[in-house]
Amino acid sequence: MNIQVRLELERPVMSHIISHTLQNIEPLDMAAMAAVRERQARLTKPAGSLGRLEELSIKVAGITGKSMPHLDRKAIIVMAGDHGVAAEGVSAYPAEVTPQMVQNFLNGGAAINVFARQTGARVVIADLGVAVDLPGHPQLVNRKIGYGTRNIAHGPAMTLVEARAAVEAGIQIVQAEIQKGLDIIGTGDMGIANTTPSSAIVAALTGQEVERVTGRGTGIDGQGWERKVATIKQALEINRPDPENALDVLAKVGGFEIAGLVGLIFGAAAGRIPVVIDGFISTAAALVATEWHPPVRDYLIAAHNSVEIGHRVMLERMELVPLLNLDLRLGEGTGAALAMPLIEAACLALREMATFNEAGVSEREENPVETGRKLQK
Amino acid sequence: MNIQVRLELERPVMSHIISHTLQNIEPLDMAAMAAVRERQARLTKPAGSLGRLEELSIKVAGITGKSMPHLDRKAIIVMAGDHGVAAEGVSAYPAEVTPQMVQNFLNGGAAINVFARQTGARVVIADLGVAVDLPGHPQLVNRKIGYGTRNIAHGPAMTLVEARAAVEAGIQIVQAEIQKGLDIIGTGDMGIANTTPSSAIVAALTGQEVERVTGRGTGIDGQGWERKVATIKQALEINRPDPENALDVLAKVGGFEIAGLVGLIFGAAAGRIPVVIDGFISTAAALVATEWHPPVRDYLIAAHNSVEIGHRVMLERMELVPLLNLDLRLGEGTGAALAMPLIEAACLALREMATFNEAGVSEREENPVETGRKLQK
Repeated sequence: MNIQVRLELERPVMSHIISHTLQNIEPLDMAAMAAVRERQARLTKPAGSLGRLEELSIKVAGITGKSMPHLDRKAIIVMAGDHGVAAEGVSAYPAEVTPQMVQNFLNGGAAINVFARQTGARVVIADLGVAVDLPGHPQLVNRKIGYGTRNIAHGPAMTLVEARAAVEAGIQIVQAEIQKGLDIIGTGDMGIANTTPSSAIVAALTGQEVERVTGRGTGIDGQGWERKVATIKQALEINRPDPENALDVLAKVGGFEIAGLVGLIFGAAAGRIPVVIDGFISTAAALVATEWHPPVRDYLIAAHNSVEIGHRVMLERMELVPLLNLDLRLGEGTGAALAMPLIEAACLALREMATFNEAGVSEREENPVETGRKLQK
Repeated sequence: MNIQVRLELERPVMSHIISHTLQNIEPLDMAAMAAVRERQARLTKPAGSLGRLEELSIKVAGITGKSMPHLDRKAIIVMAGDHGVAAEGVSAYPAEVTPQMVQNFLNGGAAINVFARQTGARVVIADLGVAVDLPGHPQLVNRKIGYGTRNIAHGPAMTLVEARAAVEAGIQIVQAEIQKGLDIIGTGDMGIANTTPSSAIVAALTGQEVERVTGRGTGIDGQGWERKVATIKQALEINRPDPENALDVLAKVGGFEIAGLVGLIFGAAAGRIPVVIDGFISTAAALVATEWHPPVRDYLIAAHNSVEIGHRVMLERMELVPLLNLDLRLGEGTGAALAMPLIEAACLALREMATFNEAGVSEREENPVETGRKLQK
């Protein structure tokens, strides 16, 4: 019996794990946010002069419910999966690169390993649907739902049951990390061809034209891009995902690792953990999560502005402003890892800066001309 | 005999320190840059997918002359000075805040201390012209040229001899840091009212209207802003700085700490040390430095985009694209310290990522459709 048939038989249609997690997502803690606003005004700097870092400190307080938040325990979760649509030649790289890059992550040689080491984040790799079996490794979580999705150009990527199972896996993976100790989490992805389902998700959920939300991925040429656009249009035509039903969109034109990231976001929000959203694929997962359950949006911090043109469309829809603009288009959670020091800096400034009173520094004056004249020799 | 008269008598008109330093500024190392470009193409990521971080790694290699650069030894130099023009009521804070904030830096309680600790940079405070004597401290370098500049609304801020002395002090301060061990340096400033001379410098050197390059500084109101604009216009009218002569502009409408930062930039470039330029005041110093000696531009990395409206004008003139856009307007070197981890990340990725060959990862294919079909089941 293959793995999909088994899932259909064994799992109930309504997931208690998902509904229970969504019920546990609470509004931001307004009292903690007010306490941070009040403290920010007393720190030795002109009010508001740390700009977005001040806003970040307030947001992290609201998420965590702590007025002096610490972000010491960091993790980047990289979800991996393969995509049947790779068969359409929509990526510049062959599908065998997915398991090869997972091995590279486990060996510590990928960009995400470098940036995670720098910022002191642990890296967890989760196999949600890589097309081959992977050898066991202490950093590898095996939650394989299937050996790659089906080709969205010909039918749905996943059944609803498979999509739910992948979301549940994501929830449970983040719950396990919370158990180990976690203050902030970053999303990452690996899956050759996964910008194609991500663009399909954006087009389906936002109603934007496919051309406006489809980029070059890892670097296809003009002809490849036209093929990719045509493939996505065909996938939307054949599957007709319901824009009012995020799970339907996710199952029909998404991917196992994208569904896993949706679960990660739900699980982190339920655990009051700030979620740093990486690039295009992670943001597609975030869009599915926020369309599915809008309150989750408040728990998200957008790391960076990807080169992929559909990224901005999603961020604007979620009203998230990315922290970095470095022309990244790598995925893996690299942008999330690079943004983490800024979020930590925001909390460090809040905790460690002296107040005007503590430092004996004069506050701003109501009438600078008068004081200026007094100081004139 | 006051300090200014002494300087006039003791120092030669032509500074050998400055001319010698400028002669030592060499072009970027093209061989090191080519080696980095070649290595970037072999690392396990789509070519160019790390965007500006790849460009940064190439630039740092060109600056340092090293194809595998390390940026372990970091310093932020905060130059402090007072401004006679504070008497015009152009700042929201009284001038006494300058020495109070210097004390805050030395006690480790300011934002720059927090961010420098986070990124592992040492903080050096240099008194180039604070209006009062400061108690000695191991982290404080006393290179006081005068007790605050003269009021630019009524005449030149400094004599040419004083301005040169401040530039020389900046050179010598960075040379001392290079002696201690230095891989990268960030600029910082402290000086109540110093956005006023900075705006005057931008207007003088770029010919832009004063209104277009004058912002709210630490937070003056609309009336204060109008007073600030009128003061800058008066300063330019009375002093008539020569836009073709950066030293003339610096002396007439600049400041001691700004001149010190010009020297810091010269000294760092001569020592092949990358210079991370902080916000508005630091960038005014960078503009003076690049107008004075254009080759120095290649040694500069713009940290962030300040809220101060004149900042963008300067960055565009120097063709520098800032790394961060966080709505900062604090100075002190805070933006420089926050940008350092990104520059370090660029070098870490270059050094620590596996190549395709090392990791056994397949490279991109010429004909993705063919391979895609082969993989199809």
